[in-house]
Amino acid sequence: MAPAGAKKGILERLDAGEVVVGDGGFVFALEKRGYVKAGPWTPEAAAEHPEAVRQLHREFLRAGSNVMQTFTFYASDDKLENRGHTQRFTGQQINEAACDLAREVANEGDALVAGGVSQTPSYLSCKSEDDVKTIFKKQIDVFVQKDVDFLIAEYFEHVEEAEWAVQVLKTTGKPVAATLCIGPEGDLNGVSPGDCAVRLVKAGAQIVGINCHFDPETCVKTVKMMKEGVEKAGLKAHYMSQPLAYHTPDCNRQGFIDLPEFPFSLEPRILTRWDMQKYAREAYNAGIRYIGGCCGFEPYHIRALAEELAPERGFLPAGSEKHGTWGSGLDMHTKPWVRARARRDYWEKLKPASGRPFCPSMSMPDGWGITKGHADLMQQKEATSQDQLKPLFDRADKGL
Amino acid sequence: MAPAGAKKGILERLDAGEVVVGDGGFVFALEKRGYVKAGPWTPEAAAEHPEAVRQLHREFLRAGSNVMQTFTFYASDDKLENRGHTQRFTGQQINEAACDLAREVANEGDALVAGGVSQTPSYLSCKSEDDVKTIFKKQIDVFVQKDVDFLIAEYFEHVEEAEWAVQVLKTTGKPVAATLCIGPEGDLNGVSPGDCAVRLVKAGAQIVGINCHFDPETCVKTVKMMKEGVEKAGLKAHYMSQPLAYHTPDCNRQGFIDLPEFPFSLEPRILTRWDMQKYAREAYNAGIRYIGGCCGFEPYHIRALAEELAPERGFLPAGSEKHGTWGSGLDMHTKPWVRARARRDYWEKLKPASGRPFCPSMSMPDGWGITKGHADLMQQKEATSQDQLKPLFDRADKGL
Amino acid sequence: MAPAGAKKGILERLDAGEVVVGDGGFVFALEKRGYVKAGPWTPEAAAEHPEAVRQLHREFLRAGSNVMQTFTFYASDDKLENRGHTQRFTGQQINEAACDLAREVANEGDALVAGGVSQTPSYLSCKSEDDVKTIFKKQIDVFVQKDVDFLIAEYFEHVEEAEWAVQVLKTTGKPVAATLCIGPEGDLNGVSPGDCAVRLVKAGAQIVGINCHFDPETCVKTVKMMKEGVEKAGLKAHYMSQPLAYHTPDCNRQGFIDLPEFPFSLEPRILTRWDMQKYAREAYNAGIRYIGGCCGFEPYHIRALAEELAPERGFLPAGSEKHGTWGSGLDMHTKPWVRARARRDYWEKLKPASGRPFCPSMSMPDGWGITKGHADLMQQKEATSQDQLKPLFDRADKGL
Amino acid sequence: MAPAGAKKGILERLDAGEVVVGDGGFVFALEKRGYVKAGPWTPEAAAEHPEAVRQLHREFLRAGSNVMQTFTFYASDDKLENRGHTQRFTGQQINEAACDLAREVANEGDALVAGGVSQTPSYLSCKSEDDVKTIFKKQIDVFVQKDVDFLIAEYFEHVEEAEWAVQVLKTTGKPVAATLCIGPEGDLNGVSPGDCAVRLVKAGAQIVGINCHFDPETCVKTVKMMKEGVEKAGLKAHYMSQPLAYHTPDCNRQGFIDLPEFPFSLEPRILTRWDMQKYAREAYNAGIRYIGGCCGFEPYHIRALAEELAPERGFLPAGSEKHGTWGSGLDMHTKPWVRARARRDYWEKLKPASGRPFCPSMSMPDGWGITKGHADLMQQKEATSQDQLKPLFDRADKGL
Repeated sequence: MAPAGAKKGILERLDAGEVVVGDGGFVFALEKRGYVKAGPWTPEAAAEHPEAVRQLHREFLRAGSNVMQTFTFYASDDKLENRGHTQRFTGQQINEAACDLAREVANEGDALVAGGVSQTPSYLSCKSEDDVKTIFKKQIDVFVQKDVDFLIAEYFEHVEEAEWAVQVLKTTGKPVAATLCIGPEGDLNGVSPGDCAVRLVKAGAQIVGINCHFDPETCVKTVKMMKEGVEKAGLKAHYMSQPLAYHTPDCNRQGFIDLPEFPFSLEPRILTRWDMQKYAREAYNAGIRYIGGCCGFEPYHIRALAEELAPERGFLPAGSEKHGTWGSGLDMHTKPWVRARARRDYWEKLKPASGRPFCPSMSMPDGWGITKGHADLMQQKEATSQDQLKPLFDRADKGL
Repeated sequence: MAPAGAKKGILERLDAGEVVVGDGGFVFALEKRGYVKAGPWTPEAAAEHPEAVRQLHREFLRAGSNVMQTFTFYASDDKLENRGHTQRFTGQQINEAACDLAREVANEGDALVAGGVSQTPSYLSCKSEDDVKTIFKKQIDVFVQKDVDFLIAEYFEHVEEAEWAVQVLKTTGKPVAATLCIGPEGDLNGVSPGDCAVRLVKAGAQIVGINCHFDPETCVKTVKMMKEGVEKAGLKAHYMSQPLAYHTPDCNRQGFIDLPEFPFSLEPRILTRWDMQKYAREAYNAGIRYIGGCCGFEPYHIRALAEELAPERGFLPAGSEKHGTWGSGLDMHTKPWVRARARRDYWEKLKPASGRPFCPSMSMPDGWGITKGHADLMQQKEATSQDQLKPLFDRADKGL
Repeated sequence: MAPAGAKKGILERLDAGEVVVGDGGFVFALEKRGYVKAGPWTPEAAAEHPEAVRQLHREFLRAGSNVMQTFTFYASDDKLENRGHTQRFTGQQINEAACDLAREVANEGDALVAGGVSQTPSYLSCKSEDDVKTIFKKQIDVFVQKDVDFLIAEYFEHVEEAEWAVQVLKTTGKPVAATLCIGPEGDLNGVSPGDCAVRLVKAGAQIVGINCHFDPETCVKTVKMMKEGVEKAGLKAHYMSQPLAYHTPDCNRQGFIDLPEFPFSLEPRILTRWDMQKYAREAYNAGIRYIGGCCGFEPYHIRALAEELAPERGFLPAGSEKHGTWGSGLDMHTKPWVRARARRDYWEKLKPASGRPFCPSMSMPDGWGITKGHADLMQQKEATSQDQLKPLFDRADKGL
Repeated sequence: MAPAGAKKGILERLDAGEVVVGDGGFVFALEKRGYVKAGPWTPEAAAEHPEAVRQLHREFLRAGSNVMQTFTFYASDDKLENRGHTQRFTGQQINEAACDLAREVANEGDALVAGGVSQTPSYLSCKSEDDVKTIFKKQIDVFVQKDVDFLIAEYFEHVEEAEWAVQVLKTTGKPVAATLCIGPEGDLNGVSPGDCAVRLVKAGAQIVGINCHFDPETCVKTVKMMKEGVEKAGLKAHYMSQPLAYHTPDCNRQGFIDLPEFPFSLEPRILTRWDMQKYAREAYNAGIRYIGGCCGFEPYHIRALAEELAPERGFLPAGSEKHGTWGSGLDMHTKPWVRARARRDYWEKLKPASGRPFCPSMSMPDGWGITKGHADLMQQKEATSQDQLKPLFDRADKGL
């Protein structure tokens, strides 16, 4: 294996027209494995349970990922403090551990390390631009010291905060990608995807796109709108998409957070590997070249992206050793009627049943219609008390 | 941590009325992680990728499992030979590696090691009782040498073959559990669950039950029928269930194999953690004390069993460090309307949507109505050829 | 048109192996047209709005019905009194008007008149056999005086009451048919369909079967069980089925009454004409020769039965003048893609969507588990008061 | 009953702010009753089976309709000739008979007679404006001679043809209403609803709106867009909506014609009476005052509109004699758990199941993307031949 330094950088790859396969969502995958707590969603496992994080990195690498994102989602000091995770490990320790793990596994294959920052409680609580930037700066310092290959500002609901993040990231001189978790309706202040993209490019991002909150179909559609905006403004950028692995046709502006199933009953919405191949093709056709995933993506989902784009990339991922294209491995199944499913035609046409006849196919999302600045959104360090929860329960029940 | 020798054995636990939490399904979980190939479904990863198998063991242990089953499903020599996996590793090597991994992780907590055997191509291809027993004997030799704590004969569609397996397992002097992969309609020859159970107990199994092929609701119902049969015959046994983590209300006798979604589009059927808590309670109420899972179970599903039965067991599993009971961890979520979901009442009532409005809720299973003895079921070493597949495709299309 | 007297009687037809097409459900059809009140479900429209009842008779005749059932459902004096309809018209007047309308339209085609009685509040309120029989006797007197062609005792949940009815009907010397509104689980006291049928035949019914409460698939299955019982007992009978036009896969013993959608939100369950053709064929194959419908049947549903059985009957109904077999009339549609639907293959394969993505496909029926004898089932003349309704509402809400 | 001449005219009513309740769709209702053939959809029953048409008029009147539309849909000479119905009756005879029936029943209550014209094969076959107007003129001559109260140009897919119709209708001096069968995407040439409305008002229509092709929710939304267009243009009009009684969330521009279920498997989509009350309220709140229905509407649907708007109108329709508001009539039901449904709260919250677990909730509409001018849309007198149908079948199958 060549040393990391010998690898082509992220911009070299994209400039050359290569497909870059991203990785999947660590927070959700590790929640199912028992290492992340839903609610806080913080990444202390990087320091607490490195073997679990390392193994997940390896699985994504094996599935075809070209990027190992540091497991530093919500690893800003203000968030960790909010969530009570600074007792055992400092923010710096968590960020450092995450960088080391990503680098260790990236070195085992053709992958780059990307340091990631995401939206902050400080912004939501209306802190100043300086305060918010200081938060980002702390994580960046670790990323510089650990010499990650590039940086990603991801999971922003307000383009303004993303711009601030990009501005801080740019100070490192490393390539910067920026993704918002928004849909076609735009950010939570109503800024359109096209305008958001223009602002991010102007702030210095070389790669822009969408992550989380919506299904692949919606994300690709939104990135297309971003691309149109950028091109209309006479600017240039690369495009990326890292959507959910959940079907969300029923979401409104805030995405899957507002679905009643979030986060503990999303199972019926999980995409199949065939859905993923469709996504990879549509993203590619839309001009997106950095194609990965977010919450819900398991290694086999990433492998499906890499298999769909194998003709363009020129090779299959290592993990395809254990996967027959389009179900062809079933030609070794015991039962002849299962062997009869060893073909693309079968899986492409199948409309999979839910096995849940008492459940609907779509849900009405919650829609409280509040955003940054509303008292209910001020972040606190303590868990919400029963006294605070009571009016929330009542309001929710009334809305049912 | 006490040495393994100091642990209570499986029968001691069950005789004392303790709840034993089983583990989940390695084959499906590792398929998603990229280490098992669907179709052959063989466990060579135990030797090829031990770190991945070890990690999954650890996750189940952390989730509350008291049993580490050796990852030896379909690891009989005749099956491995069929599937082309004896080139890199012998059957003995795979079985030995699996025992070592299970023991290593079992020693990290309060878990026993169970050596497992499952149904064989030899039986399906109408080989003699002696031939089939010789196959089982080879795996047993490894289990004895590696000194596993007890033995499981699992995943049998014909009670006759399971009896033969139990008879071989009994020669070791170790406790023996036996589970069939059948539903209320009985085994593939139409032997009722009650009669099956009686035969297994008479063959020497101390623990009997059901694994795989059906959802928890169906499996618990079938184990109840087994229990009634055993009690009516004036016999005694302990009971276990290790069902699928997929909803299968639409299955017929052969279970989920026959669903058109098997094995690559089962996602919409995956049980939630709340479905699992319901299962654990119903299994317990039915008198089942060895409660685990099979295909589709991820670590968080096992944790849900352990959380539901925490009052009976007297403790929560280690993994609950990262999980608030009944969603209580959401009291730390950013959005107030998600905090409003931090309660049992909310999750118990929710009917989760599939996000798939173009898909049905139930499927018509394939039903070719053939079983052991039919020419189409004779097993071969080679992958099915295109010439062999063509009539299968035609037959399948006609049936659509 | 030949005079009614010249027509072949019901038994002559069935003895000759002819198919007799029944009519549809007047109560539900006239509720939608504005002439019957849901709740009481009484047939005073026969006297109040004869033109509406006559028109519906004509539509069923035109659709192919060989039987005009008098619109006398729930027209027993005790029921009418209960429901407040004896103020404007006596029970005798309603029964007479219904006979006259049925005869008038029957004379316009090849149809017989059948006088019908159904279960009584008196039985449910635990009145004596004599009291209940007296109630039936009153309606019978009108049927004899109006000289109907044969008699039907229909819609009985308890076989005992049906036996009493048959015994009274037999005193007229006219042919007697008897149908229960039960499913495979048997009557509300748990008497099996086979045993019910034997008892009805022994009481004197020449035709036995099932009407209402379940969908065609379930009704045909139940009639098969009746037929097996009768044949096992060495008896002989003709068989009839008059099911719902609603899909009820989710019903328990009490049938569609217990579905939460009953009676005002059953629309998504309405059978298509193609479902009806399937029903006609299955009923015919099961040896049923009197094939009709009950609640939910509209004239086009009856026409579908007659079209499916046209080969056996040797002719199409008059109404087929306005209907191309298997959609063939669409070859005249304006749009070419609709013309492409002018074929059997298309309609047989289609799985029609509900257009209701927020609704489930199945419901949990209410199951209060009470039957004749329970205080809540004692019938009263007055509408239930708010004081009486309050505990019912509370109980229902708790069960949700 | 006051003579018809003494009734307030349609404009007087609307100018006074009164709610005018329209009637339902004759073509679909009479197809189910056996008097209209699907495919041709022509109204020869007005002359052939007047008693059936009269009865349906009466049911709508009784349900609360203030308008009896002449049953003259597709009764233009070119359409009748196309469909082979000029053999028994001339177009003039059909139009005359329809006027007489509408007048006869209108005189029995507080209803006006509206003469109706609809889109023509001549327009679709690219005939000249003069030719098309001549077609309309023929029907108008009958309407003038029979002195209908006002005129409706309805069911136009191209606003241009509707303008021509309005221009002809205006020559009579009678009030003119015009409705298109379009959705929010506009007419088949892409003219927006707002622009369509402006053009119709400028052509002389005093009432504009939408009928057919989409469900109530979509129609109300589209009428709102028309209203905004008219107001923005500084014009004035009254607004009407006569939607389908089928849920169509999955339709594209061409509406329910393109749904695979059209026209013979639409049953699962039928609106309940409670859906109708919601529609009436939403239409009223949107400023629509002429509120009726189209295909799929049965008398009980119209009654639901009249019941919802009873507070505004000041009275209940005659048909409510047989209907308890919000299910209150169930307080007389035999079973206590059905009595527990005698309340608004119950029915408003209920999400009715389809009883069809093997069916999806939404369909992919056909989308051949052809419109006026395309060879496949040229209309012919003969039924499409098998030679013509074959390529249509092939194309349809390929699209599946």
